[in-house]
Amino acid sequence: MNYQQHNLADTIVAIATPPGIGAIGVIRLSGKDAISIVDAVFYGKTLTEQASHTIHFGTIRNEENEILDEVLVSLFVAPKSYTGEHVVEVSCHGSNYIHKEVMQLFIRKGARLAQPGEFTLRAFLNGRMDLSQAEAVADLIAAESAGAHDLALKQMRGGFSSEIQNLRQELIDFASLLELELDFSQEDVEFADRIELVTLVKKIRVIIMGLIRSFQLGNVIKHGVNTVIAGRPNAGKSTLLNALLNEERAIVSDIAGTTRDTIEEVLNIDGIAFRLIDTAGLREAGDQIEAIGIQKTLEKIEQSAILVYVYDVMTMELEAVKADIEKLYKPEIKTLILGNKMDELYSLHDNPLHYKEQAYMAKGGDKILQDLKANLGIEYHFISAKRADDIAKVKSALSSLVGYEAQDQTVVSTARHYEALSKADGSLSAVLAGLESEIPSDLVAMDIRHALRYLGEILGEVTSEDLLSNIFGRFCIGK
Amino acid sequence: MNYQQHNLADTIVAIATPPGIGAIGVIRLSGKDAISIVDAVFYGKTLTEQASHTIHFGTIRNEENEILDEVLVSLFVAPKSYTGEHVVEVSCHGSNYIHKEVMQLFIRKGARLAQPGEFTLRAFLNGRMDLSQAEAVADLIAAESAGAHDLALKQMRGGFSSEIQNLRQELIDFASLLELELDFSQEDVEFADRIELVTLVKKIRVIIMGLIRSFQLGNVIKHGVNTVIAGRPNAGKSTLLNALLNEERAIVSDIAGTTRDTIEEVLNIDGIAFRLIDTAGLREAGDQIEAIGIQKTLEKIEQSAILVYVYDVMTMELEAVKADIEKLYKPEIKTLILGNKMDELYSLHDNPLHYKEQAYMAKGGDKILQDLKANLGIEYHFISAKRADDIAKVKSALSSLVGYEAQDQTVVSTARHYEALSKADGSLSAVLAGLESEIPSDLVAMDIRHALRYLGEILGEVTSEDLLSNIFGRFCIGK
Repeated sequence: MNYQQHNLADTIVAIATPPGIGAIGVIRLSGKDAISIVDAVFYGKTLTEQASHTIHFGTIRNEENEILDEVLVSLFVAPKSYTGEHVVEVSCHGSNYIHKEVMQLFIRKGARLAQPGEFTLRAFLNGRMDLSQAEAVADLIAAESAGAHDLALKQMRGGFSSEIQNLRQELIDFASLLELELDFSQEDVEFADRIELVTLVKKIRVIIMGLIRSFQLGNVIKHGVNTVIAGRPNAGKSTLLNALLNEERAIVSDIAGTTRDTIEEVLNIDGIAFRLIDTAGLREAGDQIEAIGIQKTLEKIEQSAILVYVYDVMTMELEAVKADIEKLYKPEIKTLILGNKMDELYSLHDNPLHYKEQAYMAKGGDKILQDLKANLGIEYHFISAKRADDIAKVKSALSSLVGYEAQDQTVVSTARHYEALSKADGSLSAVLAGLESEIPSDLVAMDIRHALRYLGEILGEVTSEDLLSNIFGRFCIGK
Repeated sequence: MNYQQHNLADTIVAIATPPGIGAIGVIRLSGKDAISIVDAVFYGKTLTEQASHTIHFGTIRNEENEILDEVLVSLFVAPKSYTGEHVVEVSCHGSNYIHKEVMQLFIRKGARLAQPGEFTLRAFLNGRMDLSQAEAVADLIAAESAGAHDLALKQMRGGFSSEIQNLRQELIDFASLLELELDFSQEDVEFADRIELVTLVKKIRVIIMGLIRSFQLGNVIKHGVNTVIAGRPNAGKSTLLNALLNEERAIVSDIAGTTRDTIEEVLNIDGIAFRLIDTAGLREAGDQIEAIGIQKTLEKIEQSAILVYVYDVMTMELEAVKADIEKLYKPEIKTLILGNKMDELYSLHDNPLHYKEQAYMAKGGDKILQDLKANLGIEYHFISAKRADDIAKVKSALSSLVGYEAQDQTVVSTARHYEALSKADGSLSAVLAGLESEIPSDLVAMDIRHALRYLGEILGEVTSEDLLSNIFGRFCIGK
């Protein structure tokens, strides 16, 4: 689709609710003919005569005067709508058959099927939101954790935009003084104080570098953390997984309508989504962690940020733990070792001989684990997956591996913004170098204009065809 | 759930849109506190002061004043709503995370999670629709074909109800004359003319029997027709299937948002859904249709109403067609034979020898097929699955096997209605027998009361706990 030459004269239509059968489904139209197209097939009140933000009951009939459905029609008269155009939402019964028939009727009456994200694209093109806010709409819909949700919502409501806007405005004010000098270049005047400019650019760079640094965290908040759980058979991995997910599952199954499948293996801790990745390979390989098992696990670990290694304090040979870790360890992957089944260790108190053996084993384990911590910085905990306190301990250990706390600080979560900020920073660094070596004002001004352009890209004040199609192509249809 | 003792004082809440990610999701509340519960967490206008059928933009915030979403709130003030109570629809961004959070907030504020069908149950209990209309709501949502849709919509709009209501009223008028006689029974008067009563009951029975007979058709319209397609390898079964489904698929993939999976193998012809059932068994068994292949196909045929047997006019031994049919044939299953690849037969014109051979073969086939038609009443057609005309011929052959044409006649499609009508008919037959044998009026009156009760059950004027939970239990949550 050609976004730049996008024809705003078209009226677009799409199903705005998820596919499938439900109580209701909403078909949304936007464009100058939205109200009249619906009015032509709606039997109830005359929609073109109704006020904005009102709802009307009636029937939708096709050309043969056959009733397709009883519906509620919601009217949003331009410019007081999501897109800034006339918007009509038709709430039908939630049947695919009805949606198909009503959609086709609207298309026959002159509407065009919307492209993915085209409603939000129009909101952007009509100045209802800037590009960064528009991007946040898709993030908001995809958000699966409190952290990702808060991030997207803040961005959608313009928090991030206004921060960039402020930086940009300060630069613009200064740049205009520089440009003024250029106009009077033969007179050798200085409207712009060089020392003030250096101070300003340095200040802006501090902020931009902070934003750049926040991207790694932002990425984690937005996409979650891939977390591999590895361990030998009977280490209690399933029990641990279930215990970790249990509360989450209970919350979800409480609310019908949320699909359990999609979040089945996502664990939310303090607003961060941990995507728990099972390693069947290790499980199936039996007693020996070799060949295929190791290989598969290593592949999964490579795609992850965290490795949780679980072993059984009762039956595991401790040297094997060490050997496993040494095989699986990668310096760039954060690793956590969990010695599980501590409850069984304690339950042997009444059998002094066994207790001593096991206590010795645990102690030996401790020694090996202490070495791993000292040498590789790997954290370890002794737990029982059956104890709620210990599960809380595991969660807090995972959370501190990520190191995120909900905060007011602005966090960058979009690769596009990260890139634009990095380029802006590069230009500002060139500005500073230029000022230091006292190069002509027009060259400094050019670097400032570059920085302004990169910051402007974030807000969509400078756009390209590719950019728009990248951004809106990942939206769902109907948004 | 106890439907009879159902507490209408509760305010109920559910997600009304299908689960999954979409542009928007709608959370619906109904009950006396619906508006005030939303108002307590909505920041925008004061909802309790707004008019019915208006829409308001604002934010939903939790107890910590954190914004959960920007939403549109639609207000329906009692009794002008679906349930007859205050109804609020909150249109959020289509994210499971947001739905979960907002749902939980409403529940903390005093709403209760709705049971399946509870909104429609309330519409029934509050007199907004009768039971037959309420049942049609679930049928309408589940409808996959024009026939099923029209049937459900007519029923929902009260067409069927008013027919039953009319019958019932006529009986009631007469019954009250009979009851009057009972009050004056010592005086031996006859307020109700016996001959008129017989005429009336006979007339009503004609209508009821028509409705009873329509049930088989109604069932087909509502649930579709299971249609097994069988044939040997390379008979052109896949080509036929694709040709039959092609147009349908094209229509479906035109409209994003309809899930292709669910209707992939449903073919709509003249408003009837044919559920095409593939018989891999025959295909895999290779040259011989024996043992497992036959067994699997027979099992599938047993669950079906129609068998389509496809063979290749070019390569198929004609005796084998006969043998296959004789093995697969069941008198209660409607069968259609398709001699496929006629295009290849015709293309041999330029090779006279081959042509004769093949023509002879086709002729021999014709003979065998004529026998099958004469003996078993099995229809056959010669087609090329590649020719659009022939595909139309197959569709029309399938359609006439069902024998349905869209019509204004009332059709019964619910087993519960079928049962109630059958019982009512039984009681009316007892009334006629009683009148003939001149039994006392009080016994006749009793049978009439029975008939009235059965007709009343259809409309929900007589209900039981089990009945309500059967009916509304099959609804989705949020309806």
